[in-house]
Amino acid sequence: MTALASEIGNWVSELTFEDLPGDVVAATRLRVLDVIGLSLAGAGTGFGRSVRNAAAAMFPNGPCRVWGTGERLGVTGAPFVNAAAAQALEYDDTHVESIVHMSSPAVAAALALSETAPASGRDVITAVALGNEISCRVGSVSPGELHKRGFHPTGLFAPFGVAYLAGRMLGLDTDTLSAASGIVGSFAAGILECWVDGTESKFLHSGWAAQSGIAAAFLAREGATGPPAVLEGRFGLFASHVQDAGARRDFDRVAGGLGREWESRNAAFKPYPAAHVLHPYIDALLRLRRDMGIEAADVAAIDCPVAEYIVPIVCEPVAEKQAPRTGAHGRVCLQYTLAEALHFGELGRDAYRDDHVRIPEILGLARRVRYHVDPDYPGPGRFKGAVTVTTTDGRRLEAVEEFNRGSRQNPMTEDAILAKFEDNAGARLSPAARRRLLDAVLGLERLDDAGALAEMTVENR
Amino acid sequence: MTALASEIGNWVSELTFEDLPGDVVAATRLRVLDVIGLSLAGAGTGFGRSVRNAAAAMFPNGPCRVWGTGERLGVTGAPFVNAAAAQALEYDDTHVESIVHMSSPAVAAALALSETAPASGRDVITAVALGNEISCRVGSVSPGELHKRGFHPTGLFAPFGVAYLAGRMLGLDTDTLSAASGIVGSFAAGILECWVDGTESKFLHSGWAAQSGIAAAFLAREGATGPPAVLEGRFGLFASHVQDAGARRDFDRVAGGLGREWESRNAAFKPYPAAHVLHPYIDALLRLRRDMGIEAADVAAIDCPVAEYIVPIVCEPVAEKQAPRTGAHGRVCLQYTLAEALHFGELGRDAYRDDHVRIPEILGLARRVRYHVDPDYPGPGRFKGAVTVTTTDGRRLEAVEEFNRGSRQNPMTEDAILAKFEDNAGARLSPAARRRLLDAVLGLERLDDAGALAEMTVENR
Repeated sequence: MTALASEIGNWVSELTFEDLPGDVVAATRLRVLDVIGLSLAGAGTGFGRSVRNAAAAMFPNGPCRVWGTGERLGVTGAPFVNAAAAQALEYDDTHVESIVHMSSPAVAAALALSETAPASGRDVITAVALGNEISCRVGSVSPGELHKRGFHPTGLFAPFGVAYLAGRMLGLDTDTLSAASGIVGSFAAGILECWVDGTESKFLHSGWAAQSGIAAAFLAREGATGPPAVLEGRFGLFASHVQDAGARRDFDRVAGGLGREWESRNAAFKPYPAAHVLHPYIDALLRLRRDMGIEAADVAAIDCPVAEYIVPIVCEPVAEKQAPRTGAHGRVCLQYTLAEALHFGELGRDAYRDDHVRIPEILGLARRVRYHVDPDYPGPGRFKGAVTVTTTDGRRLEAVEEFNRGSRQNPMTEDAILAKFEDNAGARLSPAARRRLLDAVLGLERLDDAGALAEMTVENR
Repeated sequence: MTALASEIGNWVSELTFEDLPGDVVAATRLRVLDVIGLSLAGAGTGFGRSVRNAAAAMFPNGPCRVWGTGERLGVTGAPFVNAAAAQALEYDDTHVESIVHMSSPAVAAALALSETAPASGRDVITAVALGNEISCRVGSVSPGELHKRGFHPTGLFAPFGVAYLAGRMLGLDTDTLSAASGIVGSFAAGILECWVDGTESKFLHSGWAAQSGIAAAFLAREGATGPPAVLEGRFGLFASHVQDAGARRDFDRVAGGLGREWESRNAAFKPYPAAHVLHPYIDALLRLRRDMGIEAADVAAIDCPVAEYIVPIVCEPVAEKQAPRTGAHGRVCLQYTLAEALHFGELGRDAYRDDHVRIPEILGLARRVRYHVDPDYPGPGRFKGAVTVTTTDGRRLEAVEEFNRGSRQNPMTEDAILAKFEDNAGARLSPAARRRLLDAVLGLERLDDAGALAEMTVENR
């Protein structure tokens, strides 16, 4: 039986740009745009500065641009910084079923590699599309099982997508690609204890995934070996990380229909810088605010039906989720998030500041948000949400969001994604520089030298 | 309650060279020597060359020496290469209870850091001693539980030791040290699927641990935060990696008696380049060979009583363990190892070549090695072994090794460790160069500039 990593390797080594469906190409362009914008915005956070300063101190200068700056690092160092910054606002796209943030590491890795060896825009689109596809598929083996065990799916699964996309850009053959995958299984990591105390370590996972995948590809290229049964084997990724023998492990999801069905179509863009499972609740509540004029002071209680699997992610422990320790912490709290959204009437790039989590009105409202498990709510694969607001004058108002906005079933418009980029990139770039970058990304398949993109993230060049 | 990472951080920030017991200082010097020798020997393997070439291709030049070469990489890149090479022969020391190979990543990290900022020999000894101590202690929370779930303890636990030793060398305070520990929990990784097919990914774990720990320390220094409850928390390292709620989790082992009791005293040097649990079996069998004149052709069967926890590590599946796919694979196979040891009468630096695993006499003998679980055999914390040889002429000969040679209870002599260094370093260095390096390491606490050690690993300078 062919190992799964080899099946993927076969596909990767034969895939061409022409094989990509038009909608996947179009979505991939937007994902590239979204990630660059997010990274430019995230670079301005305290976390973004910490990562950049640490990288400057520990990594020697190299050929690859730290986006938005004059600094250059090596082919693992720069994407580590760029992808980590792109996660800093909890605002990057997500494969809905696996809850893998696949694009930040993929885009950062592909653009860095394009600065070390000639790569066209088509090469980059192909690499990002296949990398994303693999991260989504590997993540779909045991959806919902990782978070509740304390693992972060992005940290565990995105390294695989990056290993293949890097291997593809390095021109590796099938066997070497599967060796890279075998190797990267030893680097895949990421726990969620930071969700308990609001620290930042989780935001490093996308950057770590980027550098891990690239390192694995280089190691394999130079002959280091790793187990092709890295996913399904006796001591493989799933046996080790999902230990209950009865847990779901649907390995057919990895390679079944590869190239015919594009799982990355089920990856959703984010209109809000918050945990993705919270999005439909935010949209439902903001709709009530907009349509019914509900404001924080009117609210006696907000009730939310939830799927059981999200309880340990965003609902419990209740006291923590009502009063997060930091802004970063707030991004993964249902109760706090609904309170901040209703208080300000929006939840944009500047939401979740550390001083917000000390505003008495928000904290008071967060204590009036309740959840209950609804057994009929969909599991991983669909983010549905609803709110029932009981007003102080006794009305009950309901709103339901069947699918999160940004998903395949309820897409963000291209204009909304471009506006998000404008807002995020505005943190660093003038309108003219944003326009030049936007045009280059939207015409990516016509760009001969994709390495130029990283240059365009810098204002004065 | 103080988080464990903070308790360790308190200790690390206050520890001085003078606090180290004399035997710990002496052992640490020998560990430094052992690791350098192993890395020089391991660099000559195919794996060692792969890692070096990959590093040269992906990492920019920096200040830190790749031992034995003219190459210099950054403060994460060089120790990645040096520590990986030091694991390539499965010959580096091991904390007996946790089966963590703590010294390779610690020594590689400390010496690289000493090339980036002034550090004395005493600073390096202190850093390595505390790093090793922490790796051993963290590894002792759930001894025996990781391997059987498919995790490699070195990959999971050594990053913590390195994070603290790097943080110490960077001068971090207690809170920042515990942030580094919180961060490195997101980088801790390493699965064992390579033990199923004989590929090499496991040998990367010590190198990855070194670069992970250093990166975490730099990130924390620049203000990135991580959860201090990274070990014991709800989504911490042990909750996530040892999922059965009934499994042993003795958190008192982490900080109990820190500074009074030195757990690293229970780390054993290796006289053989093989999985450490195999050592007492090898010594028992070679003793029969030496004392009774037993050779492979005389043997009808070899029976080995084993502790249950080592069965999935080195005994099963039997067909694989009798006929490993590669030399690297052979190093973790009881049946094959005893056959190669008896066939050649020794098991040194040149053992386990890939052509050895195709020698019919060895493979035939491996099929005559059997094991049975002896419930009275000691669990993690003591490597005991015994062989009963049934000869073709009907004799039954027994030998028991109560503690592995190299352990605290059955130590290798200093001369034997120096001879091991001579043999290993002889792969790269002339007798004069070896002598100079040996003298420097044995007088490490009198060395003002520890950065000079890395220079001495190069023959012509």
